[in-house]
Amino acid sequence: MSSDQSTPPSSDTVTAAVLLIGDELLSGRTKDINLGYIAEYLTNIAIELREARFVPDVEDEIVAALNALRTRYDYVFTTGGIGPTHDDITADAVAKAFGKEIHHNPEAIALMKVRYEDGDLNEARMRMARTPVGAKLIPNEISAAPGFRVENVLVMAGVPKIMQSMLDVAGPTLRRGKPILSRSVRVESGEGTLAAPLAAIQDKYPDVALGSYPFSENGRFGSNVVLRSKDEDLLEAAHVKVKAMAEELAGTGQLKIKTWS
Amino acid sequence: MSSDQSTPPSSDTVTAAVLLIGDELLSGRTKDINLGYIAEYLTNIAIELREARFVPDVEDEIVAALNALRTRYDYVFTTGGIGPTHDDITADAVAKAFGKEIHHNPEAIALMKVRYEDGDLNEARMRMARTPVGAKLIPNEISAAPGFRVENVLVMAGVPKIMQSMLDVAGPTLRRGKPILSRSVRVESGEGTLAAPLAAIQDKYPDVALGSYPFSENGRFGSNVVLRSKDEDLLEAAHVKVKAMAEELAGTGQLKIKTWS
Repeated sequence: MSSDQSTPPSSDTVTAAVLLIGDELLSGRTKDINLGYIAEYLTNIAIELREARFVPDVEDEIVAALNALRTRYDYVFTTGGIGPTHDDITADAVAKAFGKEIHHNPEAIALMKVRYEDGDLNEARMRMARTPVGAKLIPNEISAAPGFRVENVLVMAGVPKIMQSMLDVAGPTLRRGKPILSRSVRVESGEGTLAAPLAAIQDKYPDVALGSYPFSENGRFGSNVVLRSKDEDLLEAAHVKVKAMAEELAGTGQLKIKTWS
Repeated sequence: MSSDQSTPPSSDTVTAAVLLIGDELLSGRTKDINLGYIAEYLTNIAIELREARFVPDVEDEIVAALNALRTRYDYVFTTGGIGPTHDDITADAVAKAFGKEIHHNPEAIALMKVRYEDGDLNEARMRMARTPVGAKLIPNEISAAPGFRVENVLVMAGVPKIMQSMLDVAGPTLRRGKPILSRSVRVESGEGTLAAPLAAIQDKYPDVALGSYPFSENGRFGSNVVLRSKDEDLLEAAHVKVKAMAEELAGTGQLKIKTWS
């Protein structure tokens, strides 16, 4: 794979990490679908997701992960832990990570007063208006309680529909890199057969990342080869080579292999 | 949440992390389903999953994450990067992390010779027999190529069915902790309403972890409260309190709330 993690951020490259917070994700009770959604969303707006971490509802763990990620990547997106219950501690952890005070954000209170009658805006719900001082709100269309942004960290809900709405609000405000273009070639041959010719193409095109992803369909095995690059000419040149490889392999009767690879 | 991450491993507690390797997971092309599966599997065998990380197919990234996790948790499970293509670099990264030599493992070659004819066992497929010296194999029922274990690190495939088969093989060999028991109570009330009484119960039962997970059904909002503890008596006592809380909230006509919380 040609992606170089040590590349410093430039106007061409904007990087990100996702921090997913919640005991329920680590116990297996809740199966996360947010990471895949955010990954695809960021790819579509030319932000490169470089890392993701899942941590429990433990303040020190959230703070440590957040500080490791926010100093390394252009953006960090968090999910979970911003509801009204005692285990919702993300706002406090973010404040602690940045060394900022936490307060009841006046704009968040105003947003919530639109939705809740006075009697319903109890202490627990008011918890959802707490942000580090100076945070910018990230409202959403589903729930009254907003997410928020502190410097390069965007704090979002764990409930997928709410998170997705927050991402729609925040997305247009983010800096974007040069898009990574991609092509995909279906190869009717196991990875063990295509590995050598594919590696030869990879050697020739170091600035095109070639990945191979096996599939199984009706008892037949094959691979989808994915090409990714920021350089359209190089991508097309490599694409031609991979397609030729696929045709050649299909012609050699290598279709009926016995195993995944 | 009452789980204490600083607890040293004891006979009561066996901890784990998962390291998921692959560019395709971070680009969003492949939506991971392995983490949720492993999380549930480990919970069922009384191993506590404490952290998960997703990293790209970049050796330094894999090595750094592996060394951070393997020194901190009793077990680390990796997925992905053990196929025959040039971007399958997990075995090399694991060897590097442990400072071990890598070789063509004779037992792995023997396993693969059962499945492949001599002519088919090309150099690329032989790559799948490479392990750090001294590794124990983790065979599986789907593919000829095995996973492997080095000390407390278990290296598994990324293809879910193969990974699951490897987990079935490795699972019975793992040390287990004292099981975490759990109960769940459906509360027909938003989190903002149940937060205060739930926090009061949590204060009274610090050794029972109480989590609240909102749901929306046919326009009605509610929460599933999950109780988790290793102490059955404490769990039952807290369970009685949460059930009483749920009944009381249902009786106050708080069902028709307007928002998630």
